[in-house]
Amino acid sequence: LVSVLSSAIIVYRLPWTWKCSKLLMKFIHAGLNTIAMILAIVAMVAAFEYHNAQNIPNMYSLHSWIGLTALICYSLQLFFGFAVFLLPFAPVYLRALLMPIHVYSGLTIFATVIATALMGITEKLLFSLRDPAYSSSPPEATFVNCLGLLLVIFGLLILWMASRPHWKRPLEESTKVLRPIGGTAEGTEVESTMTSSSNADKSDMRINTEAARKQNLKFDESGQRSTM
Amino acid sequence: LVSVLSSAIIVYRLPWTWKCSKLLMKFIHAGLNTIAMILAIVAMVAAFEYHNAQNIPNMYSLHSWIGLTALICYSLQLFFGFAVFLLPFAPVYLRALLMPIHVYSGLTIFATVIATALMGITEKLLFSLRDPAYSSSPPEATFVNCLGLLLVIFGLLILWMASRPHWKRPLEESTKVLRPIGGTAEGTEVESTMTSSSNADKSDMRINTEAARKQNLKFDESGQRSTM
Repeated sequence: LVSVLSSAIIVYRLPWTWKCSKLLMKFIHAGLNTIAMILAIVAMVAAFEYHNAQNIPNMYSLHSWIGLTALICYSLQLFFGFAVFLLPFAPVYLRALLMPIHVYSGLTIFATVIATALMGITEKLLFSLRDPAYSSSPPEATFVNCLGLLLVIFGLLILWMASRPHWKRPLEESTKVLRPIGGTAEGTEVESTMTSSSNADKSDMRINTEAARKQNLKFDESGQRSTM
Repeated sequence: LVSVLSSAIIVYRLPWTWKCSKLLMKFIHAGLNTIAMILAIVAMVAAFEYHNAQNIPNMYSLHSWIGLTALICYSLQLFFGFAVFLLPFAPVYLRALLMPIHVYSGLTIFATVIATALMGITEKLLFSLRDPAYSSSPPEATFVNCLGLLLVIFGLLILWMASRPHWKRPLEESTKVLRPIGGTAEGTEVESTMTSSSNADKSDMRINTEAARKQNLKFDESGQRSTM
């Protein structure tokens, strides 16, 4: 689950995909997130089934509360992402307004899922390691602790990749197919709008992707302080 | 601890502090982080003392591993922050290079501390609630779960505030006192350097803070996709 989520997050960040069309990349992003959603639902159903089979109450732990909250937020994120960014109906100003919220929610849901996993690991180790106990540090405990630490490091790496401006997909005028009816060349894409707002005095849109990437990077340097 | 950490993170984000000098704000940021560091060390020593008094082994759980890692990273963060950004010796290019890393580390250490707290709460509830057990959802369990959920919401709110470009302290040419020997007017402050790289064609620096703030905001809009 975490690995599919991660690939969905960084899929725009792979330089070798920058020559693929924006629409294809959106479909891949949406597809990977849908797979992650299915895996999350399967995992949750499995947890409930296991609890019921073993006569353990459901939804009593902080792990389950935060996990369910994250799953609900994730399904909303998927729904709004689909409705606003994938379907061609949303106007550009709405996309521009919702994009920072979409990015923030995506990354924080990812972080919350990792925190939920860490709580789940803690619970599982305390429940399962009885003789020898977790507190006597048997090899299993050390091994699973290392996995937990690696999960944190992996999550931090993904968040780093997702927040560095120079790994950002360059601007382009590619998705004519998504242009809302009546849209002009200057307002086809959210990113284009954002750029044209930051260099409104230069009305020529950059087609060359390498130039756009550098342009992108330059603008972002001014925003580094706010970048995570 | 989490509340002091949070205030240290958002101290530059409070509009009413934008008229205070940059140096004063840096001292407040450093001071709050030092208080948080002291609280963290006191908390860790208390945990060790409690374990020793009760004959519980130390450092066996994932909570302790991740907590100690976060504490070590936090002390490095404090040391480098002090050496690079507070002391007047570091050259501007080094500050500009390290600022995004400082921001990323600060926010991710904050998130990791929250994850550690959630694991600690999970452990404590499992250890302390025996009769009635945690799994039977006594009022204490529900209450502490709510606190855990509020902690997550609080953390997400702080990360939101810390990553919104329009809550960013406006650019200014204020800290002449921090200018490295031989520095020119164009390179006194990290933020100025970042801005001048993004509008290198306009060599006049903006003194008016409100204009600078708007300028700031405009540039950041282009970087929203990467902002968390």
